[in-house]
Amino acid sequence: MSANAAAPGGLRRVLETCLYVDDIARARDFYERIVGLEPGFKDDRMVSYRVGDTMLLVFLRGATTAPVEMRSGTIPPHDGAGPAHFALSIEAGTQDEWSSHLEAHGVAVESTVRWPGSDALSLYFRDRDGHLVELATPGLWGIE
Amino acid sequence: MSANAAAPGGLRRVLETCLYVDDIARARDFYERIVGLEPGFKDDRMVSYRVGDTMLLVFLRGATTAPVEMRSGTIPPHDGAGPAHFALSIEAGTQDEWSSHLEAHGVAVESTVRWPGSDALSLYFRDRDGHLVELATPGLWGIE
Repeated sequence: MSANAAAPGGLRRVLETCLYVDDIARARDFYERIVGLEPGFKDDRMVSYRVGDTMLLVFLRGATTAPVEMRSGTIPPHDGAGPAHFALSIEAGTQDEWSSHLEAHGVAVESTVRWPGSDALSLYFRDRDGHLVELATPGLWGIE
Repeated sequence: MSANAAAPGGLRRVLETCLYVDDIARARDFYERIVGLEPGFKDDRMVSYRVGDTMLLVFLRGATTAPVEMRSGTIPPHDGAGPAHFALSIEAGTQDEWSSHLEAHGVAVESTVRWPGSDALSLYFRDRDGHLVELATPGLWGIE
């Protein structure tokens, strides 16, 4: 195959998004009790959350710096630091309910943005590691 | 609202996934020419890529550490370091084509994993910043 060949294409979605945190139990409390995510696979170094057809993976910082050798292959090392950012899509019209819910749990909504040229609105707040979490209603980036 | 109240729910997907890189032009060359993503919004500190109904946002490291004040609201600061990890979903049966394409562009496939209990297969390689990119065929995490 030529080095000028076009990529195969067919990229379907970002499937996995990763966060790196200092305390898995603290992160789980936040993302499960406050954000309302349901844990899937979990161990002492990670927890996975399915959100629609995407996955949020939360890793203990420093716990994935060595390859993970399995019979079926090797997961190469990775790691990260923040305060990084990611966004979750929420249902239209639920922003006020979310805002009240977060504030009731002592989580300050740091900012609200209404996106020009669309009905989309984003709420921004911090998780326990200072990562910037965004909840966005449909329409942002032209995506319903 | 009580602090014990359940979260509003209705989380639809992870909408935005962020990478932080040291050179936007270098990252764009990699993600556009080699991975085949199409740029959307772009400026000297970021580029956005729509992938299905999700977004990959690539930011110049250190360029988003101050709030971005807009008339419609303020985007709070964020930043990050790696080598972080994310995964893109690819079409079933395209893994060999992707592997050949990457190798033809001098991008080594660092590892291949066939996931137990499914037909899913993942290819792992590094972007120009050392971030661990995964291409996964359908079935991983039970998601088609």
